Amino acid sequence: MSYKFLINDLNSQKKIGTDKGLAKIGDGIVNLTYSIAKSIYLTESSSTVQRTGLKVNKTILSNALKNANMKHFAKNRADAHDLANTVEAIIAYVVLNDNMTLNEIIDFLKDKLSGDLKNRAQELKYASDAFTNLLNYIKKFLPDD
Amino acid sequence: MSYKFLINDLNSQKKIGTDKGLAKIGDGIVNLTYSIAKSIYLTESSSTVQRTGLKVNKTILSNALKNANMKHFAKNRADAHDLANTVEAIIAYVVLNDNMTLNEIIDFLKDKLSGDLKNRAQELKYASDAFTNLLNYIKKFLPDD
Repeated sequence: MSYKFLINDLNSQKKIGTDKGLAKIGDGIVNLTYSIAKSIYLTESSSTVQRTGLKVNKTILSNALKNANMKHFAKNRADAHDLANTVEAIIAYVVLNDNMTLNEIIDFLKDKLSGDLKNRAQELKYASDAFTNLLNYIKKFLPDD
Repeated sequence: MSYKFLINDLNSQKKIGTDKGLAKIGDGIVNLTYSIAKSIYLTESSSTVQRTGLKVNKTILSNALKNANMKHFAKNRADAHDLANTVEAIIAYVVLNDNMTLNEIIDFLKDKLSGDLKNRAQELKYASDAFTNLLNYIKKFLPDD
């Protein structure tokens, strides 16, 4: 079934980027898709299967929103936590709006990942880059306001 | 892409049901699919759109494993937390094995939900029933041992 009716009240950049329920759904989407993408990435560069599930660091997401020049989706005077919630809400929006499937997000992130993701500093950089790429890609699906 | 290579080392009921990394991925799958299914269910029985994201209670999942007669997938002397992890691992297995998509799980759970999910006791009962149904459905995709 289509899930569009879950977002048909959200018709502006600010409404999407500041919706708390949408951000909660997006939190699950971001953590799950990144976990699987990272598992694939680590497995492809290893001799054993690697399965990992994790929460994506808020700094990774807030950096991505800034790098994609999308801070105007967030509320005014937003802190890193607010900016991360905005990224989560935006990603949930495109999934519920049928613009991208969860598998497409997994594959997109996996293709954009690079570096040594077991190194914390490198993961911060390269995961931020992957999410920046994702945000730039999905801009076209969002309201112009 | 197919994610089957992420599970090709897991060839028995016990290996699937006790794998920690798989349970972590499944934790994300369970929380996300149930959150969207519950959002749909609440929205369909309301005059406003309801969006919610939540962690599924461990008791709901451990009850489902017992009700589906699948405790043998868990480790010996498993507590409720272990049993819940086993449910999460099993659900992750069928997703990574391409037996069910995330959207199919959302739709399945949504179709099985009933009662007043804003009432904690009722949610415990009806969500346990929905996950029991899901486990019974996916048995056919799991190794016979």
